[in-house]
Parts: sequence; structure tokens; C-alpha cells
Amino acid sequence: MDRDVLDRNLATVADVARDRRLQVRPHAKTHKCLEIARRQVGLGAVGLTVATLSEAETFTAAGFNDLFIAYPVWARGRSGERVRALAEKARLRVGVDSPEGARLLGRALRGTDAEALVEVDSGHHRSGVSPGQAGDVALAAAAAGLHVVGTFTFPGHGYGPGRRSAAAAQEAAALDTASRELRGKGIDATVRSGGSTPTLEMADTTVLSEIRPGVYAFNDAQQVELGSCGWADVALSAVATVVSRRHDRFILDAGSKVLGADQPSWASGAGRLPDHPRARVTALSEHHATVEFPDGSPALGLGDRVRVVPNHVCSAVNLSDELVVFSAGEIVDRWLVAARGANH
Amino acid sequence: MDRDVLDRNLATVADVARDRRLQVRPHAKTHKCLEIARRQVGLGAVGLTVATLSEAETFTAAGFNDLFIAYPVWARGRSGERVRALAEKARLRVGVDSPEGARLLGRALRGTDAEALVEVDSGHHRSGVSPGQAGDVALAAAAAGLHVVGTFTFPGHGYGPGRRSAAAAQEAAALDTASRELRGKGIDATVRSGGSTPTLEMADTTVLSEIRPGVYAFNDAQQVELGSCGWADVALSAVATVVSRRHDRFILDAGSKVLGADQPSWASGAGRLPDHPRARVTALSEHHATVEFPDGSPALGLGDRVRVVPNHVCSAVNLSDELVVFSAGEIVDRWLVAARGANH
Repeated sequence: MDRDVLDRNLATVADVARDRRLQVRPHAKTHKCLEIARRQVGLGAVGLTVATLSEAETFTAAGFNDLFIAYPVWARGRSGERVRALAEKARLRVGVDSPEGARLLGRALRGTDAEALVEVDSGHHRSGVSPGQAGDVALAAAAAGLHVVGTFTFPGHGYGPGRRSAAAAQEAAALDTASRELRGKGIDATVRSGGSTPTLEMADTTVLSEIRPGVYAFNDAQQVELGSCGWADVALSAVATVVSRRHDRFILDAGSKVLGADQPSWASGAGRLPDHPRARVTALSEHHATVEFPDGSPALGLGDRVRVVPNHVCSAVNLSDELVVFSAGEIVDRWLVAARGANH
Repeated sequence: MDRDVLDRNLATVADVARDRRLQVRPHAKTHKCLEIARRQVGLGAVGLTVATLSEAETFTAAGFNDLFIAYPVWARGRSGERVRALAEKARLRVGVDSPEGARLLGRALRGTDAEALVEVDSGHHRSGVSPGQAGDVALAAAAAGLHVVGTFTFPGHGYGPGRRSAAAAQEAAALDTASRELRGKGIDATVRSGGSTPTLEMADTTVLSEIRPGVYAFNDAQQVELGSCGWADVALSAVATVVSRRHDRFILDAGSKVLGADQPSWASGAGRLPDHPRARVTALSEHHATVEFPDGSPALGLGDRVRVVPNHVCSAVNLSDELVVFSAGEIVDRWLVAARGANH
């Protein structure tokens, strides 16, 4: 991990958000790393976003005291006890997208200062209610004793070539509709939280109050191929060796257990070699990456060491116990991936 | 992990191999778990197969003393020191598929009892030389001081519907040709090692001396969809909760950071629900699995707990620190995934 690139990425988003009066609540699921979270808060982030109770537990144990679990937590049994313990330690926000889920959460969080945000679907069609139903869920949540403070969405359908702007527009429309629905039920919706790395620069500041990008800290091959950054903005790669060659096909010793197996249909392959932009990773197994040069003569040889950028950096980081930290081309530190595996 | 199913799977392959006079050297990259490796050796496995130096280090540190690193290890620098240290601790075999790789390995292993196997490509087109070139690589390896004892291949192209038998036939043909090539150069090829879980039952015993299946210990959704096992043979699943529902689409709280993102083009989805065979996992993100019922009415409700079988169990196990061990429906133990993350 190149710390110089990381710091530049963090500062760029912090500056842009400040200029545009958007609060930044970076998603820590990308890096799972205390040192990086501290840098984000140092640059003005209002708190952290996490995806799971165990990520929240890792970061509150390290002293982070403002967390949003951007997930419809099903607060039954042990999960109810865990979310309550978190609310007693930190300023906590939790997602909700159903009356049933709200009732469990209301019971678990009774008597705490925790807040709830209604998740709406802005077109990604994963969790979240349709914006027009947000008021009903908010009412049910309020009836269950939750303190509802707004709405959130994840415009994940912006992860596709040429889809970033449309997804950002749908994100704003969904949050706007949902917020009006809440107000129509007498519930104030001061928080309108959206954002993802690809839609970041198109975030509609007339609607959004907060953005939750994650990948921007490192960037990855997907972001480059989507056009949201360039190779110089990619802070993390795996270092691999060419261990086998047959004709014009090269085998690297970094596979899906290092890079992750994520490969959307529009991706050029299973990762990219930033120092060989013409190269394509045409196959990936657990410990092998197959590299070919469809557009020109091969530029690798047996024993060469190459950098490989994963398609999806969140998955790759979760496969490693630590980040080897470079600055100005030298190893300067090793940072623990503190919440590695904290996915429950 | 259902220990009863695991034990039955291990015993079945051990019995079949004994009947067919094939040595079994199970691939430990699947389970990365000492308790399971001990069971395999207890049932007659001649040793273990591993994919990486760090897996080999984990298992030798735990007392396993017969290991095959089925990978063209590039034994330069620190990797050379590590492979030598392994050879001084255990009976070690290492893969080689190029004269250049053989020279590095020969230097690293000088004076040890380590043995080398030439990797040949039987149609999967990953690492390995073509069978007709195996003799030349073996000669180069012998000239580099390596003790060459045979050949190996991975018929990974058997991972496709209707391709298992053809892949097994090509596996045998490749090992047969390669062994003849070695003998033609005056090098004895007593080891002819092949095998993968889908091609296991078709392994040609007139050629193969050894099989290296890995997945068979647990099985997974891919194996069921390939027809190499049934649901009752699947020993490992994730337990997930339905946290969100919209119309006939259900969201589970187990995503790619628990199940792995592996999804071959022929798979029905991103995993399977063994207790709901009609269900399809139509999308997977880090913490969400989307479940739909294309062939009938939905059979799930909010809050339901369901088992989810990963497509590729090797990837899923590598994402967890421990296996929760069930027997007769009760939790009886927890086993460490000792080599979790040992992928370098």
C-alpha cells in the first residue's frame, strides 16, 4: 500500500466534501484498518460507516465513538445484545428497512441514544424499501421506540460503465422522495446519506447531507475501468512473480485467495497490471493468475515481479492480515487489518 | 461444519482409493485445518498436498512430515530459504515446470532429500508444460541437482457440466505421455499424480499412482451442480438470516466476505440453499445475498435462518478463522482454520 497515494486520496475527498458542504462518513469495510480510519477522522470525517456488528465492535474498542451500521441489522437474540452494547459505548446509528426489523431494533436499543436511518432502494435493488414506503417504515420505527433521523441509500448500480451519472441522479431523487415521505409523517429527516466512490463526484448537494465512500481510500481496477480514477490514484496492489510461462500466457503466483474473485461482467478481466496496461488477467484460480497480451507482444518473462491491482479492493484487503506500507518507494510500516474477517 | 458428513466423505474416498490401489494425498488448501488433516492421515493418506510455502510451514510446524507443494515454486531469495527449511524438516516434494524454475529450486534444495515432480498441462491451460516437453524439463531439473520422481497434473477443466469424464481421460493421457517422456530420458517416473474432486471417480488406475482431491472433504454447490455429489454429502455451510424482503426477493446477511465471490459461468448463481433447492442466489455483494425463487412461490420470510452452501468451499473456508463443528445437530467443537490466510 502506497501511503502517499492513500493520503492524497483521503485529502482529495475531504477537500471536495468540505467545499460542497457534505459530511463524510467513510465506509471502513474497505480498509478495516485503525490507522486509516484515524487519518480519515483527522481530515474531518464526522464518523465511520461499517457494515457489520463485528466491524463496529472492532472500531469502538479502538476508541472510535461515532458509527453508522449501514445495514438492516436483524437485532434478535445475541445480535440484539451486541447492538445494544455498541449503543452504550458510542454514538450509534443503525439502518432499518422493515417494520419487523424496526421492532426488534427498538426493543434492543430501548433507553439508549441510538438513532435509526431508513434504508431506501435507489435502483440497486438489494436491501432498502422503495422511497415511497420510507414514511411507513419510519413510522413503524418510531412506534417501536427508535429515534429516526433520516434516510440512506447505496447507489451500487453506479458500478457499471456509463451508469455513474444516472445512478447519482436516482440516488438524489430517492433520498429526496424518502425525506419528504418522512416529513409527511411528521418525522424530521435531517440526515440524507448516500454516496459510493463511483458516484462521489456527481453527488447532488441540494439533497445529500452526507456521503459514505469506501473504496476511494485505495481505489482498484474496477474504479479505473469505470473512469472514477486513474492508475496513479491506486494505492494498493499485490506483488506477484511470473512462475510459469507457456507461449504467450504467463502465470502469476497471486490468485483469488489474495486478490478476491470479484469480476463483474463488464470488467476486462480478473484484475489489472498497472505497469502493463495492455495486459489482461484472463483467468484466476486460487493461486494462479493467467496474464495475456491480446493487443501486442508480451512484455513479461519468467521470474519477473509485477504489481497486480485487484478488481475490488474491499475483498482483497479482507484476505490479508496486514498492509505493507510504502512511502517514496520504501517500506516504512506494516498496518494491521484490524477488522479482517469481522464479517458477522 | 457437519462432522458426521465430513467423516463419511473422508472415509468414502479413502475406501475407494484403497480398493483401486491409488495413494491419496489430500489437498489441504481446501480445509487448512489440522484436525481434518489428521483425520485424512489416520484414514491412510500418504501425506498432504499444499499450494503455498506458508501452508507447508503451517502443517510441518504441526508435525506433518510428508508434504507435496503442488505448485511451480519460484525459489528465489527468501522463497528459496523457506523451501530449503521445509525440506530439512519434512519429506518434501515440489512442483517444477520450467528449466529456469528448476535451476532456482535445485540451488535452494542442494544437499536435501527433497524430490521434484514435473507439472504437465492436461487441458486446464494454467501452469504445467505440455506432456511432450516433460522429459526436457525433467532433464533440466536433474541437471540442476533435483531428484525427479515423476509427474503431476491438475485436470481443472473437469469443472464444467459434462466435462468430468473427458478431463479425466486427458489427465491420464497427459500423465502417461509425460511419464514415457521421462523414461525416454532415463528418468524413472514412479509418481503419476492427478486427481480433483470432480474427476475422482473416473481416475484411470492403469496410469495414476496418486490422487490429490481437496474439496471432497466438504463438497460445495459447484460439486452438486457438476453432479459429483448430492446435498447430503455437503459438510459445510454458512448460516444466514433473511434481513430484508421486497416482493419476492429476499436478502440474506451472508455475502462474498463469508461465501467467497467464485461464480463460474455455468453455476446457477452465487451459492445454493440446500434446504430450498428451488431457490437461486441471483446476486451477491459483500454482506448481502439476493435470493429469488424463479420456479415457484417464495418459501422464506423475514427473520428466517437458512443454510447457504458456497459455490467454492476452498475460498469460503479461507475467509473464516474457525469452523463451528456440529455432530448429530449439536455444536460439539470449534476447529481453527490454522492456515487461514497462508497464501504466500
